[in-house]
Amino acid sequence: MKTHSITFLPDNITIQAAAGKSVLDAAVAAGLAVNSVCGGDGVCGKCRVIVKSGKVTAKPNMFLDRREIQRGMALACQTFIDGDVTIDVPFESRVGGVPQLATEDAIRYGSISDWVGEGALFPHNPLFQKIYLDLPKPTISDCICDQERLYREIRRSRDIPIMQTGLAVLQRLPDILRQCDWKVTALLGCRGGTVEVVDVEAGDTSASNLGVALDLGTTTVVAHLVDLTTSKTLATKAKYNSQITFGDDVISRIMYGATPERRTQLRDVVVNDINDLIAGLVVDAKVKLNDVCMVACAGNTTMIHLLCALNPANIRKDPYIPAVCCPPVIRAAEVGIKINSRGLLATLPSVASYVGGDVVADVLVSGMMRSPDLSLLIDLGTNGELVLGNSDWLVCCSASAGPSFEGGGITCGMRATNGAIEHIQLGRNGDIVQCNVVGGSKPLGLCGSGLIDAVGELLKAGCIDRRGRFDPAACGGRLREGDSGGQEFLLFPSALTALGRDLVLTEADINNLIHSKGSIYMAMECLLDHVGMSFDDLQHVYIAGGFGNYLKIDQGIRIGLLPDLDPAKFKYIGNGSVQGAKMALLSQEALKNVQDQIAGAMTYLELSTNHKYMNEYSSCLFLPHTNIEKFPSLMPAPQKQTDAAVAR
Amino acid sequence: MKTHSITFLPDNITIQAAAGKSVLDAAVAAGLAVNSVCGGDGVCGKCRVIVKSGKVTAKPNMFLDRREIQRGMALACQTFIDGDVTIDVPFESRVGGVPQLATEDAIRYGSISDWVGEGALFPHNPLFQKIYLDLPKPTISDCICDQERLYREIRRSRDIPIMQTGLAVLQRLPDILRQCDWKVTALLGCRGGTVEVVDVEAGDTSASNLGVALDLGTTTVVAHLVDLTTSKTLATKAKYNSQITFGDDVISRIMYGATPERRTQLRDVVVNDINDLIAGLVVDAKVKLNDVCMVACAGNTTMIHLLCALNPANIRKDPYIPAVCCPPVIRAAEVGIKINSRGLLATLPSVASYVGGDVVADVLVSGMMRSPDLSLLIDLGTNGELVLGNSDWLVCCSASAGPSFEGGGITCGMRATNGAIEHIQLGRNGDIVQCNVVGGSKPLGLCGSGLIDAVGELLKAGCIDRRGRFDPAACGGRLREGDSGGQEFLLFPSALTALGRDLVLTEADINNLIHSKGSIYMAMECLLDHVGMSFDDLQHVYIAGGFGNYLKIDQGIRIGLLPDLDPAKFKYIGNGSVQGAKMALLSQEALKNVQDQIAGAMTYLELSTNHKYMNEYSSCLFLPHTNIEKFPSLMPAPQKQTDAAVAR
Repeated sequence: MKTHSITFLPDNITIQAAAGKSVLDAAVAAGLAVNSVCGGDGVCGKCRVIVKSGKVTAKPNMFLDRREIQRGMALACQTFIDGDVTIDVPFESRVGGVPQLATEDAIRYGSISDWVGEGALFPHNPLFQKIYLDLPKPTISDCICDQERLYREIRRSRDIPIMQTGLAVLQRLPDILRQCDWKVTALLGCRGGTVEVVDVEAGDTSASNLGVALDLGTTTVVAHLVDLTTSKTLATKAKYNSQITFGDDVISRIMYGATPERRTQLRDVVVNDINDLIAGLVVDAKVKLNDVCMVACAGNTTMIHLLCALNPANIRKDPYIPAVCCPPVIRAAEVGIKINSRGLLATLPSVASYVGGDVVADVLVSGMMRSPDLSLLIDLGTNGELVLGNSDWLVCCSASAGPSFEGGGITCGMRATNGAIEHIQLGRNGDIVQCNVVGGSKPLGLCGSGLIDAVGELLKAGCIDRRGRFDPAACGGRLREGDSGGQEFLLFPSALTALGRDLVLTEADINNLIHSKGSIYMAMECLLDHVGMSFDDLQHVYIAGGFGNYLKIDQGIRIGLLPDLDPAKFKYIGNGSVQGAKMALLSQEALKNVQDQIAGAMTYLELSTNHKYMNEYSSCLFLPHTNIEKFPSLMPAPQKQTDAAVAR
Repeated sequence: MKTHSITFLPDNITIQAAAGKSVLDAAVAAGLAVNSVCGGDGVCGKCRVIVKSGKVTAKPNMFLDRREIQRGMALACQTFIDGDVTIDVPFESRVGGVPQLATEDAIRYGSISDWVGEGALFPHNPLFQKIYLDLPKPTISDCICDQERLYREIRRSRDIPIMQTGLAVLQRLPDILRQCDWKVTALLGCRGGTVEVVDVEAGDTSASNLGVALDLGTTTVVAHLVDLTTSKTLATKAKYNSQITFGDDVISRIMYGATPERRTQLRDVVVNDINDLIAGLVVDAKVKLNDVCMVACAGNTTMIHLLCALNPANIRKDPYIPAVCCPPVIRAAEVGIKINSRGLLATLPSVASYVGGDVVADVLVSGMMRSPDLSLLIDLGTNGELVLGNSDWLVCCSASAGPSFEGGGITCGMRATNGAIEHIQLGRNGDIVQCNVVGGSKPLGLCGSGLIDAVGELLKAGCIDRRGRFDPAACGGRLREGDSGGQEFLLFPSALTALGRDLVLTEADINNLIHSKGSIYMAMECLLDHVGMSFDDLQHVYIAGGFGNYLKIDQGIRIGLLPDLDPAKFKYIGNGSVQGAKMALLSQEALKNVQDQIAGAMTYLELSTNHKYMNEYSSCLFLPHTNIEKFPSLMPAPQKQTDAAVAR
């Protein structure tokens, strides 16, 4: 087989690649994380590279204009190596930077002491415990075996019906007990309904008991290092999920993971991310990796499947069946996670294929399952997951929102990382009044919250109508004909942007957002309808998910994403996944509640076969809705007060 | 390092061995199983070899006479290689042949249908089960995950509070369910208080569910292949425990196993034996190895430690503490046992260092723990283990008997394999009236039961007195001066024996037996005394152990090994270990009874610190006892009847 040299800039990494291989595959082989929303199908246009020199063959595509092609721009997945080549992978095509959501500051709702500890929602009773034991030495009259002596002492302070120990521990036990004069620390990990004596350490090591709470998102992986004794978070880190190279959303990853080999590859990629994060946390907190003995992980059903190399194929096939909703607690090393070699990995259970452990974690953090008040929880991402209920019942559903909330499918969309316009305020004619960019630099693109702001502001300014169409009269000079046909609204001229490209918004972009928000709003209506209730019955609305955190409630209502309720009813959960995982880590009772009261008791409403959802969806494809009376606060001023009073 | 060629005859195996290495070590390296009662310390004299040619250095020893040394005879463990050598390993020095105890015929007490099944002691409820499931196919309204669908169907027929599944099964589950149209067989194994879904097989394989019951003895390994559905024993096999090369008794094996490497070696050696047996069973029964999914193993505490490569060192150090009495159920592959790759290994629990799962199995088989009658159970081997009690309580002890019951430490002693004199009847002057030889050939030596017969008969004939000393007048011409000093009684002249060596019995041999039997008898008295009872209170005496099976009750009473009770009270258990393991395999309730009512509730009496045992032991060093009134049936005729009446 003929091979060619391929050099990637600016990294200056050269590898040998077979002739005919795609530039994307070569980049993956070179260890570069290249954006690929569609997983290499050539339909997302995110894997732009610049061919600096050498011979390639490129399939035609509709994402690049003539000028760009002349500059050497190409889609990595549609470009194939024909000779030695040099390829520039620009900043915007890379999965990189640090996601914005990683810091504790981002958590705007509650704190761990509200959830776990004395007088809190759940008692402090960690999933992994280290207990120091000063064992009575054996005598002729007290001659029980080493294992039973250990068990007996553990049971003096804890009620553990089923205790288990592996052979490896028993093989070490006699020597360690005698070497340290019967003073040992037992490491106890919860595994389903049993407790495992995971290891025995010499002397008193009980003060060093660490765990990692993990939010395993499709886009972002967030890890918090937690001191399981004090409940304190010692360090936090986040990075993008490197599986992005194989597809931006769960569907494209499921499709990629069609064979056991590819599933192993997908698992290894994300486990590398996890290991990077944990290694960094341990350095930051100046602790020993060996003292980290438990990882609790919340993620959507597909992410958990891929973490465990489980076949996710049936998640996307009617009737949408996961292999497992409540995976067993396993040894972390079984999937390659590097903590204490005998450490454990617990995952928060899913409810269904599209309502995962991340949503279950949100519910846990919201506390809605403990309150008699009717609450609605919204987790916004590529999918919108909704949970409705109270302490008596919970019902949930999932609505496909498309990628627009995460900046996908939008001409100048991007993830909420450095350079993303997070918030924007427009004046008359759409002139920019104020603009917040993540990291404070020049803008690079629009993330979800920026997009919603922009559309909301354009609507308020009259630049677009309720169907999302531009009104040239109101837009002033900012409206122009785009390269690929259709009108586009110029937000920022190239001179003011980070990469020297105009930042625009097209009618197609706005339409994508309308479909996304319409899908979510319709799902809320269906869920309420399913239990014979309406928006007016809601006492609390919890907003979760990485994106939800930055959503402005008034803008959400203005575009018809959120129901028109008193803003005081809305609460931000923050990163419910990582906080829920942390609660599970710190409280066996919290995990049990998740398993029994939340995941175990929640009813799942499948929307793909729901008539109301199918029939009435189109009524939501307006800003905010065909029926403006559903949004009384947005009705023209004279009528506003009366209608609002009726609605409430 | 200088090496030499060493050739072993008659096998004609040549290996290279380092200069200075012992012939025994070289033989082990060559894969030969050489007798070594003492584990290579030069104190048992059982590893005789003949140096045919070449240069060796031999340490002096007291086991070989001048004639033998002149013939080239040497002890393999005391002979070191100095050049290329050729060594003959005679038949008598080999661990080989098939132990006598392997056949079902040897079981003289009860049958599996008395123990397990309808109307029996325990219900038929195997430790490993295969259940065929025709799962309802998933629909939108019944969209639980694959794992839960499997669990739900299993729970329809079984009450299983905690079910566990490994990642490997979950990784295969989605495909296998769909490939075979949701018709699968679930393989369920009991693991402690939980049930593991060990695997899922396509279609209905429930008819092929096999297990192996294992008696893991210090000397002998016995394996029975059992159909777990029908309870039928399909095949049986036995072989000597190849660890014998590292020492004949548990103490020498414990001493050998001082390092982790040696423990691995000891484990591998016996696991090879087990694998040989299982492979043979599967061929004999014409079944598939993959259908064998569970091994239940009964063995003494040391054997179980060595099987699991657990450190046994503290078993022989005061206060005699095992690493574990109730080892966890593990995957058989963890120790190297070759059955279904996901198959399980369960071991019967021990009570203490010297009362193991083999004795617990005996108790199970005797049924004494279910009867209000006071029963005594005797398991005779190198150690004598005794259990006393009824359905309310059980107390046990262990007495070191020395190796004489297994033919060890006796000039012409041997194990109960081909050529062993199993029973012997002598007339006046010690002339042979009748003699049974295992295998029917010429005699090679005396096994335990033959030795007891011989001593009992010599006592009856007046050839020895109650202290075990020869009476020359009564012995006629059979008494002579032995090579190494002391008198010896010629049982068979060389011409009548299998290897052309005289078969003799020395006063030292008789003395060894007296010490062995005295130890057991004294232990029985102590055990009864401990609970304030006497022999007269006993309603049943169960005799277990490989050797016990062949013991004649009257001879046992005559030499003072067994108490002088009505012979109708004695019952042979047969190989209680393998039968008990089989019961555990066939009935979860039987195993639970073993764990809770037998091993869990049995009190252990340590004899090494027992005053009565120490002080009164010497009174037992007579035939039958210093106090003949304890054996009224053996008293001179005129007094006999009266005293017997009093005693009962």
